[in-house]
Amino acid sequence: MANATPVMTSRTLDSITGAKDVIVKCENFQRTGSFKFRGAWNVISHISNDERKKGIIAHSSGNFAQAVALVSAMLKIKATIIMPNNATPSKIQATKGYGADVIFCGNNPGDRAKMAEELVEQYGYRLVHPFDDYNVIFGAGTTAYEFLTSIKPIDLLLVPIGGGGLISGCSIAAKGLLPRIKVIGIEPKNADDAYRSFQSGMRLPVVNANTIADGLRTSVGEKTFPIIQEYVDDIVTVSEEQIIDAMKFYWERMKLVVEPSGAVPLAGLLSGNIEPSLIKNKKVGLIISGGNIDLSKFFEVLQKDSQTSSQLIKKK
Amino acid sequence: MANATPVMTSRTLDSITGAKDVIVKCENFQRTGSFKFRGAWNVISHISNDERKKGIIAHSSGNFAQAVALVSAMLKIKATIIMPNNATPSKIQATKGYGADVIFCGNNPGDRAKMAEELVEQYGYRLVHPFDDYNVIFGAGTTAYEFLTSIKPIDLLLVPIGGGGLISGCSIAAKGLLPRIKVIGIEPKNADDAYRSFQSGMRLPVVNANTIADGLRTSVGEKTFPIIQEYVDDIVTVSEEQIIDAMKFYWERMKLVVEPSGAVPLAGLLSGNIEPSLIKNKKVGLIISGGNIDLSKFFEVLQKDSQTSSQLIKKK
Repeated sequence: MANATPVMTSRTLDSITGAKDVIVKCENFQRTGSFKFRGAWNVISHISNDERKKGIIAHSSGNFAQAVALVSAMLKIKATIIMPNNATPSKIQATKGYGADVIFCGNNPGDRAKMAEELVEQYGYRLVHPFDDYNVIFGAGTTAYEFLTSIKPIDLLLVPIGGGGLISGCSIAAKGLLPRIKVIGIEPKNADDAYRSFQSGMRLPVVNANTIADGLRTSVGEKTFPIIQEYVDDIVTVSEEQIIDAMKFYWERMKLVVEPSGAVPLAGLLSGNIEPSLIKNKKVGLIISGGNIDLSKFFEVLQKDSQTSSQLIKKK
Repeated sequence: MANATPVMTSRTLDSITGAKDVIVKCENFQRTGSFKFRGAWNVISHISNDERKKGIIAHSSGNFAQAVALVSAMLKIKATIIMPNNATPSKIQATKGYGADVIFCGNNPGDRAKMAEELVEQYGYRLVHPFDDYNVIFGAGTTAYEFLTSIKPIDLLLVPIGGGGLISGCSIAAKGLLPRIKVIGIEPKNADDAYRSFQSGMRLPVVNANTIADGLRTSVGEKTFPIIQEYVDDIVTVSEEQIIDAMKFYWERMKLVVEPSGAVPLAGLLSGNIEPSLIKNKKVGLIISGGNIDLSKFFEVLQKDSQTSSQLIKKK
């Protein structure tokens, strides 16, 4: 039930990176604006009838919330979503718009999980985890499966890492289809738990995650980390400035509305932190994970500017 | 040499308009970010060798400027572009970036044409008109040809009107392919010369064009107007607020960076000013003419906000 999303290319991107081709998989065009729909559909459509009757519960900063809300509405299941107080307002609004009940909690990732457990206890809801669930992981992996089967073989695949659901699913699919492909995870420096975990071989929690990439503030999961250890070749981190520059490139040059988390792989490609021999004359695939970003301020200013200039003309 | 641009759809758009399908042709993904590349390529690639040696000159508020600059660079022809003082800075920058010489003039459409004539006189440049030239018109018309041959027949095609190059080319192509299709031009109320001309049957100039749709501030042309009279079924106008709301829909819901002029057909579709029987249960095609908009302020604010919040964390 997910959209088959298009891929995009840019001559400018090929020329500034020295890659043979840079090909971008656009999950910002996915239903609900992010790849999360794939995992939500895959897990919720497999829930038993008894569980459906009781309803489901999920916790998410936004993209998974929207995906669960829409899938639940499509399957006529009651959904309760726990969102942090500091979630992007447009993501909260969209989640409510699809008909889910939204409950707010504190901003620590631990807060959400705790509140979810309490409500599961109280109401018997089925908890749907945003990434640490094999059905969610396999659903997310269809992104890479669809990407790699729709284009000619690529040499390097760059995927953002938050909880690790997208990259674990995508790395399984990518290595299954193309055993020699390299898969590199890109993570914000300001939420580098996956990088530190990968280096040390032990799952370490995120500390003070302060990144504009709101989808990547969570710690890598119990189920996703071992998959990352097995199938991912490397993890590279990027600064906040690099993330914003990559967003800017997508918006200005490729006319794509991409959220900060979705621009992280391009930030990695442009950062100089990836071994150049993996890029030079190679075919590089990037996954844009989503495009949900609050634009209300931008449009308020535009609206105001346009009214002011109309009044000036009328006064002439 | 133009890109075959993709088409996009939105379930939300179908449901709010009551149309059977709304299908959007994305010329914002065209080379140089607008349909103007098609006309520029079609005219400049046909110029004689003698004329090529002397160089070409064009006047444009931005999108045609970029297109002429890139085509000239590709064909190794010297290009001089006259742009108004109030042209969008990112469009000026892009035009220079492709290697054209940019000369500035006043903000009245008449200023540009006058300066161009003087330079043609002085240097023997070949003048390339942004829309009132049959090769430019036919080039622009490939947008509709490609659109309508790539999808199933549609009932109604909505196209923005500025100088009329896009709609005259597209209406010829559309009526040629699908004689029963309706073609409606959409124009900003604040630059409604085509609407008034169409109603009165005489070509009337634009007065005090004060619209955010910077590509649509020019008057309809001598060559384009008779084509519009013959092939276009109606012209409908939209307010500045409707244009901004349509842009907002494209950005927020469809994740497409669309410039104000490019959002004008959607503004028309959502305005209620088109006879409902032409929309209800019909297949409606919209042309997004371009996606070139200055985002530097938006990204400056984002950059500043992100630095501030990083510093706050470091001080903890």
